[in-house]
Amino acid sequence: MINKFCKKPLYECTMKLARVATGAEKADLVIKNSRLINVCTHEIMENISVAITEGRIALVGDAEHCIGENTTVIDAENKYLAPAFMDGHIHIESSMLSVGEYAKAVVAHGTSGVFIDPHEICNVLGLDGVNYMMEDAKRTPLKTMLTTPSCVPAVGGFEDTGAKIDPADVALTMDYDCCVGLGEMMNFPGILGANPHTHGIVAETLKAGKIPTGHYSLPETGPGLNAYIASGLRCCHESTRAEDAIAKMRLGMYAMLREGSAWHDLHEVAKAVTERKVDSRFACLVSDDTHPNTLMRHGHIDHIVRRAIEEGIDPVTAIQMVTINVAQCFQLDHEMGSVAPSKCADLVLMDDLNACHVTDVFIDGEYVAKDGKLLIEFAPYTYSEKATHSVHLDPLAPADFKIPCEGESAKVHTIEVIPGRVGTFDKVVTLPVQEGGIAADSEQDILKVAVFERHKRTGTVGRGFVKGFGIKRGALAQTVAHDAHNLLVAGSNDEDMALAANTLIECGGGLVAVLDGKVLSVVPLPIAGLMSDRPIEEMSAAIENMEHTWKEMGSTLPSPFMTMALIPLACLPETRLTNRGMVDCRTFSFMELIAE
Amino acid sequence: MINKFCKKPLYECTMKLARVATGAEKADLVIKNSRLINVCTHEIMENISVAITEGRIALVGDAEHCIGENTTVIDAENKYLAPAFMDGHIHIESSMLSVGEYAKAVVAHGTSGVFIDPHEICNVLGLDGVNYMMEDAKRTPLKTMLTTPSCVPAVGGFEDTGAKIDPADVALTMDYDCCVGLGEMMNFPGILGANPHTHGIVAETLKAGKIPTGHYSLPETGPGLNAYIASGLRCCHESTRAEDAIAKMRLGMYAMLREGSAWHDLHEVAKAVTERKVDSRFACLVSDDTHPNTLMRHGHIDHIVRRAIEEGIDPVTAIQMVTINVAQCFQLDHEMGSVAPSKCADLVLMDDLNACHVTDVFIDGEYVAKDGKLLIEFAPYTYSEKATHSVHLDPLAPADFKIPCEGESAKVHTIEVIPGRVGTFDKVVTLPVQEGGIAADSEQDILKVAVFERHKRTGTVGRGFVKGFGIKRGALAQTVAHDAHNLLVAGSNDEDMALAANTLIECGGGLVAVLDGKVLSVVPLPIAGLMSDRPIEEMSAAIENMEHTWKEMGSTLPSPFMTMALIPLACLPETRLTNRGMVDCRTFSFMELIAE
Repeated sequence: MINKFCKKPLYECTMKLARVATGAEKADLVIKNSRLINVCTHEIMENISVAITEGRIALVGDAEHCIGENTTVIDAENKYLAPAFMDGHIHIESSMLSVGEYAKAVVAHGTSGVFIDPHEICNVLGLDGVNYMMEDAKRTPLKTMLTTPSCVPAVGGFEDTGAKIDPADVALTMDYDCCVGLGEMMNFPGILGANPHTHGIVAETLKAGKIPTGHYSLPETGPGLNAYIASGLRCCHESTRAEDAIAKMRLGMYAMLREGSAWHDLHEVAKAVTERKVDSRFACLVSDDTHPNTLMRHGHIDHIVRRAIEEGIDPVTAIQMVTINVAQCFQLDHEMGSVAPSKCADLVLMDDLNACHVTDVFIDGEYVAKDGKLLIEFAPYTYSEKATHSVHLDPLAPADFKIPCEGESAKVHTIEVIPGRVGTFDKVVTLPVQEGGIAADSEQDILKVAVFERHKRTGTVGRGFVKGFGIKRGALAQTVAHDAHNLLVAGSNDEDMALAANTLIECGGGLVAVLDGKVLSVVPLPIAGLMSDRPIEEMSAAIENMEHTWKEMGSTLPSPFMTMALIPLACLPETRLTNRGMVDCRTFSFMELIAE
Repeated sequence: MINKFCKKPLYECTMKLARVATGAEKADLVIKNSRLINVCTHEIMENISVAITEGRIALVGDAEHCIGENTTVIDAENKYLAPAFMDGHIHIESSMLSVGEYAKAVVAHGTSGVFIDPHEICNVLGLDGVNYMMEDAKRTPLKTMLTTPSCVPAVGGFEDTGAKIDPADVALTMDYDCCVGLGEMMNFPGILGANPHTHGIVAETLKAGKIPTGHYSLPETGPGLNAYIASGLRCCHESTRAEDAIAKMRLGMYAMLREGSAWHDLHEVAKAVTERKVDSRFACLVSDDTHPNTLMRHGHIDHIVRRAIEEGIDPVTAIQMVTINVAQCFQLDHEMGSVAPSKCADLVLMDDLNACHVTDVFIDGEYVAKDGKLLIEFAPYTYSEKATHSVHLDPLAPADFKIPCEGESAKVHTIEVIPGRVGTFDKVVTLPVQEGGIAADSEQDILKVAVFERHKRTGTVGRGFVKGFGIKRGALAQTVAHDAHNLLVAGSNDEDMALAANTLIECGGGLVAVLDGKVLSVVPLPIAGLMSDRPIEEMSAAIENMEHTWKEMGSTLPSPFMTMALIPLACLPETRLTNRGMVDCRTFSFMELIAE
């Protein structure tokens, strides 16, 4: 695959590189006196200099002869020099930041490249949304490699999204310069069952010579995993046990060991490498998702490398897992992922290897960050009207939340959430009927919940009940709710629920908390109802404020926002609520709210 | 890069593979009860079965559920199962066998794939010659990956070849299905000196997203090697010292450790891996050239793996060096080089790992060889008239060999060969003049030598003298002589020389030995004057007979044929003779035969 992510294609600058390496011309930049983390041979080499021109490495070794009067010389003062880091699987939307703000946040931590699967925005806005994000990315130094969303909608037939992706759409995107492959193929039942549409999506990727990426979350590593890998899926970040990760590596699949904000898999999956003396070339470290607070407090890939070292992975091996191994997974190793002649000069300096403490970052030979601060600026990007006006709903009234019922009480199925887990229980409870509608009941810790389709004005709405949030009074709403990103509202009374919903309809989506007719906290996410173009510091503070509000309202969940966001995700057990109604995820069928 | 070398593209058979892996359909072939050499994780795994359909691997592990009534089941009886071997750099012409006969010879030794650089035939017949060889290859099970010859002629301006290769030719071949990259870029001075034509040839390869392969034979691993690698050359088989090989690996270049018939580098270069605890993913094992006798007596890649193990390389590491590492070098690892689902079912069984003794070979799931015998047949291929009539010379007379001179003796520059070495010395000697011409002199071990241009009837001929063959009487001739493959004749008298030349003109090229007006031995090489379509057994016997004849004629050289073949190769020190005359390779200028 020809890399479109460097300053200049290699074929346009080989003569210049050769002349600089021999000293016939002089380098733009020389970084000298470093300790090189050599990811090619797994060695640490002393007293290494690197000569750079055209954004690429011309020479590694002794570069004195490459220095001219116009050469910038940086003394690394014996710091560690490594390839800059790459995240092999990330959804930028989960950071709630625009690509530009995300780039600002991660580049200073040493990240030069991310392989993104923008399936959230794609569910809302289709390929237009993907294109907006890629346009946003272009201005930044962060190399943003697109893997085209493969599963839009995630679970067809149970909810309404803003768009869908067919094999023809995938084929179209494979011609994009920025596209390197296919995003995580979550529909493993479709792969294992030889569904032609699902296989068609993979086939279009393979035809283009690009990389289909995977998502295989079953604990079954026999026929199922083999069938999945045989279908061309090259990597997977869904291992939660060491035996899953090693099974994948043995079958030639890149095991992307995950340490995200919500998923702390590394403690377990690192054992795939630490407890066996295996060749680790098929292991990578990825984040999958990172919330602004994690980025602010802990960092990005640097944090995950640090975590890997804490789990006993050799530091040089850990660096390989975020550099050359990722590059080889995507067959971009001729351009990225090592400190070697001809490669893009994407480099970090670290003053502490075990702490993976990045002090200086270079991308395409440009000095982009120092001591955690960005050294460069880039032009602002304005998302189009289509992106910033994606909540297509008229204002709602309290009556829109009513669940009509006769009598004095009703037996209903309620969705009981499990603290810190993605699953739910189906629980039948008796709720009071007030003014002709079934009401929430704080005594039983039960809130009313509603999902409004917000993309195409179908007018569809699902209503039900949820148990276990710990909130006695008020309402919460959000447009992030996975994977259709419809408007999800939960609350104790219809008035607060309507206010919460209308606040988000007004601001183009986001998160909100309401109590007794007052908006206590709001995080606007005007880009597709998923992201904001505000800086990470502001977003992090706003989200902390929101979490604080939830706690004050009585929430007892460790991650109430995420738990809430999963209520409509109809691929998880046991029951869910989408804009089309209650779904029994054990049988994949719709169910009645009222229990017999 | 999409692989065109498998039975069926992956995108056409993922559904079938998934169904076989899950057992919904049954496999064509199951190999069970093997010990898997897992090149992905560097492990040996017990009791492994492999299920195969569509020529690809559907499942690795327990395959009982993949067996149906039409499934062929092979019990590996606890033999070692490994990916079949690949030779990352080979010139088939040096075997003197056609591609078909070469394939027959190597497949039974476990070779499933070769990355060929057909620059010999290209010097004679241009891209037509390359195309003939690729057509020949198509019928065989051997996956023959073309790297387009980059240096035709090898040394421009000093000799006449049948063809030349420009950047436009390279660009043309990059569209070939069979082309994976560029052949060894021997013109490292052109790369280091930023020559636009040389860089243009590499650039056309890079533009096509294919792999430029290298040839960097300098001991300098600083600015020169960096410049060479910075120019995009991804691998090199020219290391003769461990420090050269490790320097290349550290700079992200694949070090192809060579053990050819003429070049026994492994004893030294293996130390790059054995004496350091480095990651060996950038090391491969290659043959570069193999004579029929080596193939008959020792084998092909199996022999080199055995040699690597003898040199102390771990057996599984050695197998990695001829499987997954080669595949990753050429970015074909998604298709070849590991025993993993989706990959081509190119497999070997071995009953002894340390001896690398291959008993069974499968290519694209077809059982192609057992116990050293081919199990399949393939259609014969007939090379075109252009290939089989490539010696464009009218019969020669003794007078054509005359070097006119007055007087009784002459002081001339003679080329003194060095036993077992590629270099020569420039030596000034006094030779008798007989019948108006300078004569050979057996007292001084000096033969007359002549090079006739044989491609385009330019009528050019170079004449001179060579010292050190030990042959008192008679003549030798050959059309293999590197790299222009003109007609080279050496002898004690003009009559025998004319007979030797005319014998080869008559049979379309080859090797011949003549004594006292009689042809003692001849090896016809009618394909481009380089190769024969006769079986390896016949060729090996013919060459042994020729070597025996040389010895009987008095030759004292360890490898007289190769030493003779290098007489015209004007890139080696000190002096050479081409069809244009004597070349002083110290100054790269023509020189007079008569010494001042």
